[in-house]
Amino acid sequence: MLQTNQNGVDRRTRILDAAETCFVRSGFHRTTMQDVAAEAGMSAGNLYRYFPSKDAIVAGLSERDRREVAESFAVMDEAGRDFMAGFAELGRRHFEDEPREKAVLCLEIWCEATRNPTCAKLTADFANDIVERLTTLLDQAAAAGNISPAMETRTIATLICTLADGVMVRRATLPDYDPARELPAVMHLICSLVSGHVPALCPAKPTEVTP
Amino acid sequence: MLQTNQNGVDRRTRILDAAETCFVRSGFHRTTMQDVAAEAGMSAGNLYRYFPSKDAIVAGLSERDRREVAESFAVMDEAGRDFMAGFAELGRRHFEDEPREKAVLCLEIWCEATRNPTCAKLTADFANDIVERLTTLLDQAAAAGNISPAMETRTIATLICTLADGVMVRRATLPDYDPARELPAVMHLICSLVSGHVPALCPAKPTEVTP
Repeated sequence: MLQTNQNGVDRRTRILDAAETCFVRSGFHRTTMQDVAAEAGMSAGNLYRYFPSKDAIVAGLSERDRREVAESFAVMDEAGRDFMAGFAELGRRHFEDEPREKAVLCLEIWCEATRNPTCAKLTADFANDIVERLTTLLDQAAAAGNISPAMETRTIATLICTLADGVMVRRATLPDYDPARELPAVMHLICSLVSGHVPALCPAKPTEVTP
Repeated sequence: MLQTNQNGVDRRTRILDAAETCFVRSGFHRTTMQDVAAEAGMSAGNLYRYFPSKDAIVAGLSERDRREVAESFAVMDEAGRDFMAGFAELGRRHFEDEPREKAVLCLEIWCEATRNPTCAKLTADFANDIVERLTTLLDQAAAAGNISPAMETRTIATLICTLADGVMVRRATLPDYDPARELPAVMHLICSLVSGHVPALCPAKPTEVTP
């Protein structure tokens, strides 16, 4: 099958890149399969051999993102690595080096997820997968004595993802958003979470923390 | 003018409610002025007397949201109020009592803001306004001795908004999102920020915090 050889992989990549460009430029809904084919420089018939629908393209994009996240996290996992230094690098790569268009694409997919079940499942699986991987990473770092969180690691992982989603929104929507200005505070807050500055959450009265 | 009397106010409200319903159901882009008119139970001609375009409707929605935020913050501002108790109530009202549809609407407006300059300006003004109001509120609470933040209040306000945006994303996109499960940790983190648990940000090396 064409899809499995190197030529097929390259074409899939080219299609996914083209789809990203189209979704960011015109929005997910106004983009047609014809638009994607044109952007990828191929016929619609050829495009359909690789992806039968826009949902299939979103699945492809999601799978690619997931692979990239797994690779980034694998780097974090290197033995003897200083956790926060590694994490700060991950943050920079994810939020500064990536162009703003990636954040716009995220918003498009999220919007679609609110009313498209296929997209909703991909989004939820992706979000849960990241919380899971992050929790494992935090557990390993804590076991190795690299971090000393006071809160449950899964709760911290969820908070980090919440912050990351918020950064995406600000980056995509605010014309004067400057990652170099806002990210240090976000990384500092994450650092405070993993180094035990933020005390354990009391389930009964979560808001009654005194200094 | 019709728009300024009570009847006009009621009609504007009815139109804005109808527009919210349509935007959530079909997305901002697929919603036509005709859809909004039908949902509001009036003729398109009548609708255009109040709002000449979808952008004008978004401006109306934005203005209404801003008024609601100002009212919520005014309640927080009551003398002798325990800051975190008031803030927790605000969080509950904003994230638990409001239906999920409000979060979906937010995503729609944000998406539109990424490529519609009118919408982008409204979104940015709104975001900046909230950071501004929140900073003032934090400054007042700190001056009154109700909170003791270690970080700059504007930085804390921005972090709170980032978290709030992230909560919106999770609420809108994750089918099994449960505000009652996730909000306590978010409020706890905010509480830690305002009560000085999270240390001041060192501008030079923001990630080098040790416990």
